[in-house]
Amino acid sequence: MKLIIGNKAYSSWSLRGWLACRQAALPFEEVVVPLYDAEWDRRREGDEFAPSSGKVPILWDGDIVVWDSLAIIDFLADRVGRDRFWPADEAARAMARSMAAEMHSSFAALRREHSMNVRQIFPPQPPTEAVQADLARLFELWMQARARFGGEGDFLFGDFGAADIMFAPVCTRLVTYSLPTPRFAAAYAMAVLQHPFMQDWIAAAQAEEWVIEKFEQPVAG
Amino acid sequence: MKLIIGNKAYSSWSLRGWLACRQAALPFEEVVVPLYDAEWDRRREGDEFAPSSGKVPILWDGDIVVWDSLAIIDFLADRVGRDRFWPADEAARAMARSMAAEMHSSFAALRREHSMNVRQIFPPQPPTEAVQADLARLFELWMQARARFGGEGDFLFGDFGAADIMFAPVCTRLVTYSLPTPRFAAAYAMAVLQHPFMQDWIAAAQAEEWVIEKFEQPVAG
Repeated sequence: MKLIIGNKAYSSWSLRGWLACRQAALPFEEVVVPLYDAEWDRRREGDEFAPSSGKVPILWDGDIVVWDSLAIIDFLADRVGRDRFWPADEAARAMARSMAAEMHSSFAALRREHSMNVRQIFPPQPPTEAVQADLARLFELWMQARARFGGEGDFLFGDFGAADIMFAPVCTRLVTYSLPTPRFAAAYAMAVLQHPFMQDWIAAAQAEEWVIEKFEQPVAG
Repeated sequence: MKLIIGNKAYSSWSLRGWLACRQAALPFEEVVVPLYDAEWDRRREGDEFAPSSGKVPILWDGDIVVWDSLAIIDFLADRVGRDRFWPADEAARAMARSMAAEMHSSFAALRREHSMNVRQIFPPQPPTEAVQADLARLFELWMQARARFGGEGDFLFGDFGAADIMFAPVCTRLVTYSLPTPRFAAAYAMAVLQHPFMQDWIAAAQAEEWVIEKFEQPVAG
């Protein structure tokens, strides 16, 4: 398999697709294409990017292609077994699927106003009302999942899985922007950041040479 | 099972959840809560709406709850078998999952500027550039799916399934707003509108008494 992603420092959707591949524990080659530079523009014109209309991540396996992070999760779950990504318990799985889907379509203010940058910790600024509302919903979901299904594990549904993969970029944003975070949520976010896959991702991001100015501001436009 | 939805005339996400329940062929009770009126405000405060923070559709089965249309599809696929929703062929399934996920997170202009109204055909107006771009992407995806995997069937991957469910509201918008549609896409959209489940939905929408003015304009604000 070959996974095409953007810069590890900035590309939150790429992070999700990449974590899914690591979680699947299948061998894959990663191809990092720096967002927005000349190489990016050139590569996006190519056949590899065609199915997704230029967006990352894109997972290729021979002629098979999957181009959305949630679709990549379920494509890989079909391959390696659903239990590696989703809780075995039906009620827990219903909640995990709902939360992953909500992260996929919602939390627009949090994503827009606080772009991912896993290399930076910016000076704190108060979040806007829209971001505060997103955070309140986020923490409510995390609390419910942890309380009902977290058990003895460190993650939303005990073991690391699809829901954690979908929320991983948000965990980094809490640190990068010093967003106000209740204790239980901070503990969960820290567990995600300290997961070996995340540590590998962050180390690789720190080794990247590319700098994109728009992501190096404390609050995105 | 009990499915909580908004008005059938207007609620595009509800339509997806409802089609998924019909496709699963499991018995379910439907509860229609009119969007935005006093009953809606009252009901949204209740426990039934709590998991989703007030959004529809919400599927309850005893204590189990699923609150997003894509999550409802996969929850039901877990129950009744994946093949009722997703193509059996792995390459086709990879594409179907990618397309369903892209519909779930994208096509913002088309959704924002052309709200679903399955009871109306408005006077044609030229679509904005953003909507034209969404339509171009939409038709490209439909063409690829039909050409590669449609076979002898009428739907994106042959038989009616999850991808068709996700795109069903868009099919109605093409008619409601007379959006410029190539012949193959019009044929596909018509097949969706004439599917028995869609015919049932549209008939029920036409029997609804509620009228919400903001959805009765040819172009939404």
